[in-house]
Amino acid sequence: MGDPAGIGPEICLKLLDYAKDHLPKVEIIIYGEEEILKEESRNLNLLDIDSSQVFNTSGLLKKDHLQKGVVDADYGRAAYGYIKAAVDHALSGVVDGIVTAPINKAALQKANISQIGHTEILSELTQSSKTCMLQYSKEVTASFVTCHCGFSDVPKFLTRERLHDVIELTRNALFKVIGKEPKLIVLGLNPHAGEGGLLGNSEEEKIIIPEISEAKKRGLNISGPLPPDTAFLPKNRKDADAFICMYHDQGHIPLKALAFDEAVNITLGLPIVRTSVDHGTAFDIVGTGQANPGSIIEAVKLAERLCTQHDTGPGR
Amino acid sequence: MGDPAGIGPEICLKLLDYAKDHLPKVEIIIYGEEEILKEESRNLNLLDIDSSQVFNTSGLLKKDHLQKGVVDADYGRAAYGYIKAAVDHALSGVVDGIVTAPINKAALQKANISQIGHTEILSELTQSSKTCMLQYSKEVTASFVTCHCGFSDVPKFLTRERLHDVIELTRNALFKVIGKEPKLIVLGLNPHAGEGGLLGNSEEEKIIIPEISEAKKRGLNISGPLPPDTAFLPKNRKDADAFICMYHDQGHIPLKALAFDEAVNITLGLPIVRTSVDHGTAFDIVGTGQANPGSIIEAVKLAERLCTQHDTGPGR
Repeated sequence: MGDPAGIGPEICLKLLDYAKDHLPKVEIIIYGEEEILKEESRNLNLLDIDSSQVFNTSGLLKKDHLQKGVVDADYGRAAYGYIKAAVDHALSGVVDGIVTAPINKAALQKANISQIGHTEILSELTQSSKTCMLQYSKEVTASFVTCHCGFSDVPKFLTRERLHDVIELTRNALFKVIGKEPKLIVLGLNPHAGEGGLLGNSEEEKIIIPEISEAKKRGLNISGPLPPDTAFLPKNRKDADAFICMYHDQGHIPLKALAFDEAVNITLGLPIVRTSVDHGTAFDIVGTGQANPGSIIEAVKLAERLCTQHDTGPGR
Repeated sequence: MGDPAGIGPEICLKLLDYAKDHLPKVEIIIYGEEEILKEESRNLNLLDIDSSQVFNTSGLLKKDHLQKGVVDADYGRAAYGYIKAAVDHALSGVVDGIVTAPINKAALQKANISQIGHTEILSELTQSSKTCMLQYSKEVTASFVTCHCGFSDVPKFLTRERLHDVIELTRNALFKVIGKEPKLIVLGLNPHAGEGGLLGNSEEEKIIIPEISEAKKRGLNISGPLPPDTAFLPKNRKDADAFICMYHDQGHIPLKALAFDEAVNITLGLPIVRTSVDHGTAFDIVGTGQANPGSIIEAVKLAERLCTQHDTGPGR
């Protein structure tokens, strides 16, 4: 359900409404608070839900009265609790996969939760050390070598080992989705991909180019490093099944500009299937009924496809 | 004319052809080599030019036979010479402004030219210390606090003084173009604009937010820092006259994805009017006749508007 003060409850209700007619094969359970969902339903005149559609974690939220659009430790703690309950059920096979609604990073921090976001929480709860975020949309799909870190920390986290892992995770996930060897495009770190070592500290020559060569030797369909600004031209968007991006905004800027409200976030490298919306808690429109369920609907559809997996080929 | 081995000569010829019918008020002179232009015209079956349309700098190019699509010190030196001749004429008032075709940074470097690109060359030739790049298009206009530097050098160059200068340069240039106080949006440096200091080294709190406050006090119509990934959503693109970006790819990625072949590059802070194409030498399509003159045509149109300036208001 995500942060109870955000648009999570609203998009969950709109998702259930959509699923009734359009997703007959998927059984959706909301991990959250039944009372909050019912109140949201009354306030915004959305569908009635019954108890069977909610795994009720009531008691997590301490405060009597929910104040929408506000950062609060109580809401951060509750949101974490919904995730933990769902992950436990996914690990034990009670559910096939999980789809997450938006949480608020500041609320998590106020609740003394040390992980900065979903990806980090899920990695820890499932004890997965090699994970990465992938954003999936029809227009652009991107995975991230670094993600929720400060700009100045990016070069430090960009290592050959990490890039190798992200290339493998991306290749295997896309193979599952499209059922064949995916075409991967790797981006440079520096403007113009360093222009032959002219710009930057030769991260392209030292890290990116050698890893692309290694991946080619393993039989992957991979190319790059491309200059980040021309990587997302229409021709490349058509060619590539996924772009491997060096940092958060390198991939999120074109994704949001080109496919807002459609993109789905997947965590790769977990022992469970997990997809997510690609937007935040949207405190500015909370309670107005304007929240668009497009991303959560796409996230559920993609989770369904990932739960019905293709083989990823020999040795993988 | 740009690097003689690139698509510069081809787009210059296509520009002259377009200008005949569509730009009656603009007199265009190509700074370059008449023989190369004539050869390109014959090879690609483009318009015939006469000597009055070229400021002939022949003698700059030492080699007899021009090899298209190749990085060569000789071509870098020649391209620099065309720029220098045009800048001298602009400074002395022989021409009203200059428009540059693409050069090759590696060729400049081979020619031992220490400046990395046009902006740096123009700053030095006109002895201008406070300059910045602005990319102009109908869809997105962006100026850059840092530009052709390595990714890891960006935080070092992002200072309050530099941001102040870029805000002022951008405001004044846009005022000239649109004739009224422009609406400026400033981007954050870190993912999610740092999420309240959670990501990064508080560059938003220490540098960007204080400078926005100062600019507001000076009466500017300015807001931010916006999360870089949602800054370019359609609503903001409609609202903003310009986005102030912290680094090259933050603005170039959305510009190229949304307005390729239309964007124009302007150097702000020079004593002369200067616009440029926003693409490179395109060695991959050189000699095929496929080069699109859209950007150089727009660059000439914008230069014309900047040469017919609005007042920028009192005290500026």
